[in-house]
Amino acid sequence: MSETKERAYPVPSIRRLPLYLSFLRKLRDEKVEVVSSTRIAEELGLTGIQVRKDLAMTGIVGRPKIGHTINELVSHIECFLGWNQTRRAFLVGVGHLGTALLGYKGFQQENLDILASFDTSPQKIGKEILGRPIYPLSRFEEKAKELNVQCAILTVPAQFAQETADLMVKAGIQGIWNFAPVQLFVPEGIIVENVSLSSSLAVLSQRMNSQKTV
Amino acid sequence: MSETKERAYPVPSIRRLPLYLSFLRKLRDEKVEVVSSTRIAEELGLTGIQVRKDLAMTGIVGRPKIGHTINELVSHIECFLGWNQTRRAFLVGVGHLGTALLGYKGFQQENLDILASFDTSPQKIGKEILGRPIYPLSRFEEKAKELNVQCAILTVPAQFAQETADLMVKAGIQGIWNFAPVQLFVPEGIIVENVSLSSSLAVLSQRMNSQKTV
Repeated sequence: MSETKERAYPVPSIRRLPLYLSFLRKLRDEKVEVVSSTRIAEELGLTGIQVRKDLAMTGIVGRPKIGHTINELVSHIECFLGWNQTRRAFLVGVGHLGTALLGYKGFQQENLDILASFDTSPQKIGKEILGRPIYPLSRFEEKAKELNVQCAILTVPAQFAQETADLMVKAGIQGIWNFAPVQLFVPEGIIVENVSLSSSLAVLSQRMNSQKTV
Repeated sequence: MSETKERAYPVPSIRRLPLYLSFLRKLRDEKVEVVSSTRIAEELGLTGIQVRKDLAMTGIVGRPKIGHTINELVSHIECFLGWNQTRRAFLVGVGHLGTALLGYKGFQQENLDILASFDTSPQKIGKEILGRPIYPLSRFEEKAKELNVQCAILTVPAQFAQETADLMVKAGIQGIWNFAPVQLFVPEGIIVENVSLSSSLAVLSQRMNSQKTV
């Protein structure tokens, strides 16, 4: 494993950056050129301190009473997130959710390019979704090396998630976006980001439940 | 607004409960009857302290050296999350993601029953997805009251998210599961749980990005 000195930025701050981007792009479309952190805070329901802290994380230097140039803010945030260059990805597991992600237009703005998908079902292999081929899973490693893909989206059923992650790691994948409701075990240095619908639903349900009973 | 004294349980703990449930159900299928928090911790890559704290939150009383009865654990967690009874929901926005959620089988285990969906597109209205009708959005309030639905899934494009949330609140919805990449403003007492794919992708990208540059 390569030696990594990953700087641990606060996850809630990173999670807010796309919200800023989407607001800033809207302002840019409206020909606005400059915005203050106070205005951003008001629009997004945050505190001014939060916004200043989040923006400072990306290396932006504030100019008191003047505000930030929108273009500068956008490019700082995009650079910080690595969204200023295209990230190539594969998707494994072309079920309902996989298909939805393959069809999701929002990823274009985030410069995520899902080049191809993989599945084990003979009914799916050989077809295309929006121009992207569905290959047999057995060709994952070959294709990852051929196309220099280091990012993979995992949308297989829970019981196949760990073996799929193992296969991804073996193929040189550095980052896994995991949609399976499973805790994946991966070697140190491999990044896993979980999107757990169950976890999110648990929070919603528990909060609705506890509110009902008081 | 009703007076709510919501107990603030730690969100990371709530988010872990579905992981426990899925592991416990697997054990139950294997005819295992008793499990220790240490074993759960090992299997899920957590610490024993975390597991004991999370389980205690649901009101389970530990029995040192004996472990927990699996049936008891499952029912405590399900009760805590309100997953022991069916929660009826509507979905608004039958695009790719909405369709994926309508087809997602995992919600059955979580007792979430999406009764119907709503859209504004004449091409979609009147059709069915897995037996659930697609109604015009204009009928949302009428249907919510008729079927006593208090939970709604929001999967419309970002620019329509706030007005859709307003419509949901007006129709008596108490909890919104928001998949649009937008900060929703809702009256106090209404629960919003955000699933932001952009935020999750931001965390993955930033971590892959910062690892590459060290």
